Amino acid sequence: MLGARRLLGALRLCSSVSCPRPRASAKMRVRDALRVQDASGECVTVQGWIRSVRSQKEVLFLHVNDGSSLESLQIVADSSLDSRELTFGSSVQVQGQLVKSQSKRQNVELKAEKIEVIGDCEAKAFPIKYKERHPLEYLRQYPHLRCRTNALGSILRVRSEATAAIHSYFKDNGFVHIHTPVLTSNDCEGAGELFQVEPSSKIKGPEESFFDVPAFLTVSGQLHLEVMSGAFTQVFTFGPTFRAENSQSRRHLAEFYMVEAEISFVESLQDLMQVMEELFKATTEMVLSHCPEDVELCHQFIAAGQKGRLEHMLKNNFLIISYTEAIEILKQASQNFAFTPKVAAIDLLVPGVGELFGGSLREERYHVLEQRLARSGLTKAYQWYLDLRKFGSVPHGGFGMGFERYLQCILGVDNIKDVIPFPRFTHSCLL
Amino acid sequence: MLGARRLLGALRLCSSVSCPRPRASAKMRVRDALRVQDASGECVTVQGWIRSVRSQKEVLFLHVNDGSSLESLQIVADSSLDSRELTFGSSVQVQGQLVKSQSKRQNVELKAEKIEVIGDCEAKAFPIKYKERHPLEYLRQYPHLRCRTNALGSILRVRSEATAAIHSYFKDNGFVHIHTPVLTSNDCEGAGELFQVEPSSKIKGPEESFFDVPAFLTVSGQLHLEVMSGAFTQVFTFGPTFRAENSQSRRHLAEFYMVEAEISFVESLQDLMQVMEELFKATTEMVLSHCPEDVELCHQFIAAGQKGRLEHMLKNNFLIISYTEAIEILKQASQNFAFTPKVAAIDLLVPGVGELFGGSLREERYHVLEQRLARSGLTKAYQWYLDLRKFGSVPHGGFGMGFERYLQCILGVDNIKDVIPFPRFTHSCLL
Repeated sequence: MLGARRLLGALRLCSSVSCPRPRASAKMRVRDALRVQDASGECVTVQGWIRSVRSQKEVLFLHVNDGSSLESLQIVADSSLDSRELTFGSSVQVQGQLVKSQSKRQNVELKAEKIEVIGDCEAKAFPIKYKERHPLEYLRQYPHLRCRTNALGSILRVRSEATAAIHSYFKDNGFVHIHTPVLTSNDCEGAGELFQVEPSSKIKGPEESFFDVPAFLTVSGQLHLEVMSGAFTQVFTFGPTFRAENSQSRRHLAEFYMVEAEISFVESLQDLMQVMEELFKATTEMVLSHCPEDVELCHQFIAAGQKGRLEHMLKNNFLIISYTEAIEILKQASQNFAFTPKVAAIDLLVPGVGELFGGSLREERYHVLEQRLARSGLTKAYQWYLDLRKFGSVPHGGFGMGFERYLQCILGVDNIKDVIPFPRFTHSCLL
Repeated sequence: MLGARRLLGALRLCSSVSCPRPRASAKMRVRDALRVQDASGECVTVQGWIRSVRSQKEVLFLHVNDGSSLESLQIVADSSLDSRELTFGSSVQVQGQLVKSQSKRQNVELKAEKIEVIGDCEAKAFPIKYKERHPLEYLRQYPHLRCRTNALGSILRVRSEATAAIHSYFKDNGFVHIHTPVLTSNDCEGAGELFQVEPSSKIKGPEESFFDVPAFLTVSGQLHLEVMSGAFTQVFTFGPTFRAENSQSRRHLAEFYMVEAEISFVESLQDLMQVMEELFKATTEMVLSHCPEDVELCHQFIAAGQKGRLEHMLKNNFLIISYTEAIEILKQASQNFAFTPKVAAIDLLVPGVGELFGGSLREERYHVLEQRLARSGLTKAYQWYLDLRKFGSVPHGGFGMGFERYLQCILGVDNIKDVIPFPRFTHSCLL
């Protein structure tokens, strides 16, 4: 559990003396081992899963991966350490000395003194096969094992880095993070696509519901963020969102993640667009600098051409066209479109992904809102929302970004089911 | 939207010339304004809500807060700028020059040249009253307005900082972040307390459920993290968790947040305890250094004595006692207790909060697990879980920390409903 730096410090003390008793050598993550400059025989223990085995007459080569990086650590051992259990997928603990590698493929390798198989792996039964590049559709059948492949490993590491980058961006720019609730009694938006929630033990009638009111899974944290933007000026949320949509499309999930922001004292869509563009670019630059190999793997094996498209997005200003211009373009297209009335709203569309961001200025005029709610018979239920316009109201606006679509966009992954650890959609809730 | 540093850079360019046209002066957050060293007449615009008004014969003093910090910015204006609408709670935009303050209470104040009321606030109707310290129970009735008080403002800023600190801790220590699913078909744990989920439009029988199987809200991400620890070695999740518990206790919510970690190649409870203690201390130190005033407010007005208790926790090693020792202590207590069999598990108990962490080593032996599942008739449903022990199995363990309880613990807030933005519990799902 030591940080890499402290670990390396500890290693140095040990490198000049001969390898002490096995248990005492320092545990090291593969990523940290690969970064050691001028390795000179430090005693380390590495733990992970075998990604490749090559048995030669006198030498045994293994590649061990522990998920800390795409790259594996090469283990070089005397063939006397070979055993039948050293197979693809089995877990091992290797003790030895970190040395400079003779090969140009890596800087460092581990000269093994002891190799211990911790859990074996029967090749025939294991759905992931040695040296095979399985299609992503095939891997989707094995949500509990697919993370052990290079492709899913890289995608999920990128997801983790992007999550951290999004939190950093907002924090650095003075936004307060808000956990908007998953359970909500607001049911105004798209009632047909809502999931309803009840205790599983419930056999009584609906009048005795757990919360006294019907409770649903959130479709957006917007209203709750509007509450909070009235206190903190700039707020964001980043959490799960739900749609009971009967869709098997490559762009829809029943449970997906949204990044949403709400900003007070915003007067124009331009202000919102600036934050959206900055968020996209800052997050992507951070991901590219923290795990370039993982992004590269996707660009190379999953989406040829995506690298260029992404670089283009990062280098250029996002293109902005007005509603009127968009309608002109659509009118010249061959298909027929229905046009809805103008509102102060924006969508960010990305080729291959579709709508990545959606944002708008919110109605802050008390009387306009009051009339609208009255017309829908919602005045009482939304008195709290009216209150926000009654006590120190401010112009405000916000946006939401679909996090899985963002990942699809930067990695070029075609199907949304491949960028989330455990996809949920119609007819499927595995594990 | 500019970062504080760039903003300050921009300000400097403008500070030596006379104030340009109103719209052109730089927007500044209160927190950033308060940090300006050697203010010398920089032209800025500050936006926020009035926290206090003091009208003197020739001078008007306002305090404006925008939620970026507990402290407000003092505005000094000629009394000619006074107006009836400048009341507690109303939103304003103030333009003027940042100058050194004459008073010792603050370094900086804003000499107003223009004050614009954006949204007024009727004192009689506003549930939050000027200069009153409302009890937290009273504020709970107004989940949409309570964030505008000092107390909730501080608590929620601390919550935001603690969220960021937890992400940092795990990232710095090589953990991969995993979004474990909210919807799950696993129903092994505490079935009576589960929430079940169905599309709200559903009128058909249970055999036609949306996911083909009954779906529940997660009670823990542990099983999904176990999957991921088999690929990434060290993983964590930080998200909402649910219990349909009929409890109004000050320590329980129907929707609460859990920080959970899972670690492969862990061989002893000591390894887990070390991470738990480090996580607690690193997160708390970061919160204390990033928002000391917010923590101080809670310690001063909400929980006298908490400061000392927290310092004690941070300075000393957590006390570890074995199951046997705990039983000895309990036997000497006056109450009767029932004792369950030993397992490789740990709880971290904190005075006033109770169980803050719970953790254990997981059963990794295939045959033991297989027998247990067979006995419960779950072999088929949990074949995937058995698979984890079949293909490169490793000893592993993990823990969960209740995030609201953590906040209760460091801030000394007695009721869990006051440390979450929108509490959900039996009979209550407001907004």
